[in-house]
This record gives sequence, C-alpha cells and structure tokens, in this order.
Amino acid sequence: MKELEERIKRDGRVLGSEVLKVDSFLTHQVDPELMEAIGRVFADAFKREKITKVVTIEASGIAPALYTAQILGVPMVFARKSKSITMDEELLTSEVYSFTKQVTSQVSISRKFLTSEDNVLIIDDFLANGQAAKGLIELCEQAGAKVAGVGIVIEKSFQTGRALLEDEGMRVVSLARIAGFSNGQVEFAEGDA
Amino acid sequence: MKELEERIKRDGRVLGSEVLKVDSFLTHQVDPELMEAIGRVFADAFKREKITKVVTIEASGIAPALYTAQILGVPMVFARKSKSITMDEELLTSEVYSFTKQVTSQVSISRKFLTSEDNVLIIDDFLANGQAAKGLIELCEQAGAKVAGVGIVIEKSFQTGRALLEDEGMRVVSLARIAGFSNGQVEFAEGDA
Repeated sequence: MKELEERIKRDGRVLGSEVLKVDSFLTHQVDPELMEAIGRVFADAFKREKITKVVTIEASGIAPALYTAQILGVPMVFARKSKSITMDEELLTSEVYSFTKQVTSQVSISRKFLTSEDNVLIIDDFLANGQAAKGLIELCEQAGAKVAGVGIVIEKSFQTGRALLEDEGMRVVSLARIAGFSNGQVEFAEGDA
Repeated sequence: MKELEERIKRDGRVLGSEVLKVDSFLTHQVDPELMEAIGRVFADAFKREKITKVVTIEASGIAPALYTAQILGVPMVFARKSKSITMDEELLTSEVYSFTKQVTSQVSISRKFLTSEDNVLIIDDFLANGQAAKGLIELCEQAGAKVAGVGIVIEKSFQTGRALLEDEGMRVVSLARIAGFSNGQVEFAEGDA
C-alpha cells in the first residue's frame, strides 16, 4: 500500500536495529483517514471470504480493525489483555509473549462473541514474531470458528512471524513489508496489497 | 441520543445495582455503524470549538473517539495505561483509579502529541466517578493545552463524575444518561445530545 509506505518513510522513526516507531499515526496518535484507507484495502482483499467478524487485540489494532469491519458490514471484537471484574462470562483465553514489552499477557475474548458459525478476519497493527496473531488464532480455534486470514498493517519481514503463520496454512495480507533498516532508513519488500 | 438509548435497552445488561454491561456493542464487541453515529453527534456538539485533537484512553474509548476525530478532521490520541520500552520520549503522566478494576493505573501521553496550541475534546465510553476524564484533563493541563469539553457515551448520572467535572467549569456532553437501575431495567435521565 503505497500511501502507507510513504507515511512510514515520512513519519516513522527507526530506533536501533529492530524497532520502528509509528506513534504519530498508528500506535498512539492515530490518523483516522489513513485508518479508513487501510480498512478499505483489507476489506477489498477479503471481500469474497464471507467474513462474519473482525477480531483484533487492544489497543493499536482497534482503529484499523474498526474500519475494516465497518466496510465489510460486520462487528469488530477486540481481545483484552487483562480481566476486569465485569467480565463474568466464560472466556476464551490464550497466552501471548510480547518481545517489545518483555511480558507474557493473557488475552481473552468472551465466548459469546465467537462461535463455530463465525468466519474471522484477524487484523493487527504489527507482525514481528507472530505471537499476538497466533494467540488470536488460538482463541478462534477454541470457539470452533474458521479463520479466513490475517491482515497486518506493518510486517517486519526480517522476523519469523509470517513464516510461522504461513506454515500453518494461514493467508497473510500485509500492507507494508519491511525488509530491514539501513542507516536509520526503512527498506521495503513488496507488500501484499 | 435516542438510537443509543434504544441499543442500551435492547442489548445492555444490568449486573447488581451499579454495573451496566454493554460489551456487545461498545466495550468488547464493537458496532462500527453505531460508533460512527456517536462520532457524528459529538462532532456536531463541538463543531464551533475549533478542536485540534480528540483525546481518549485505551481501549474502549478508541472507537467513538476515532470517528469523532475523523468527522472533525483532526487526529485522535489515546492515552496509554502502561509504559512500553518503545515509549522513550518525555511523557505526560497522571494517576487514574478504576473503581471497576480496583487498581490505580498510570496513564500517559507523549509530550510531543499535546502542546499549548491544542484545543482538546476528550471522549470516553463511560463517566462514573470521573477519574479517567480527570486524569486526561490533567495531561492536557500539563501540556498547557485548552480543554473544550468532555464527550461521554454513557453517563451514570447517579455517580459523582459529572458534578466533579462541572465544578471545574468543564462542559460535559453525555449521549445517554442513566438515572438508575430498577428491577434490572435501565432508567434514563435526559441526554445532552
């Protein structure tokens, strides 16, 4: 997605050898128009799949997932990283290790929002080691739901996440694919859409 | 907001004497069309205020804040409840006590996303004791930003949050105002929009 690559070049900041900060338009401050454009591309890529739910994980996945769901005409569900005392129902849960935050969190979705009738599109802001996407796929599997694919805003193609998902037969659509960082500049591989 | 009140009556669930669960369309599973309608009402209520940023707190505030920001043509910023190691900049921080989760969290926004030039509209999903909104107002004050008002999706009018904010001279626009719960049914006070 050309518009996204250009935005990353203009406003992204490379920290060290592996971290890309996009907190001015995606992960902290959010550009709604760009998010809607991203939602359009994801919705278009999966429009033949009869998606019934878009599933993401709080918090940075919510904006792109919301527009994708709206354009597909289905609800969005975001997995939570901690339990609240108002979450009384039976929960689907899985463990996700975050390399960025160096903690293992439990992610959960109320069982009533995912069923064996669902055909799910998973959306997330980043794909690096694939742990978050894997955790969301596990939640869907626990519910007996089908997963039609995974839509990723920014893929770090030099890490193992994409291979992990594709080895399980998962379709992955990444809008910006980062081959690596060179002298503080982002080098892109060809995106999927 | 009639459409919201009807949705609360239809899909909200009252737990005990103080808790309203709206996890089927707002706080866990999200209805994008309803969120856009909510964004339109907030944007309309504050359209003369020359808003430059919409500020909310992760995670349930993001969806209504995102559409409000889009319709006003400004960025949305969501405050984070915990620090990540990629948040290296100077942070604005304040403490927020959650009566629901019974924990105090630190909420933070990167200083670079709020300045003394900003005129902020704060959006949140619930107003109960007003602690979250108060924390966000404090972040704005630390940055020297003006706060034009607070937009709330669901206000628990039998709790003290609204008075707390209005006593500080803050304009509060709540789309659904809950006077109380009677026999598991929601009783509404007149909403602000």
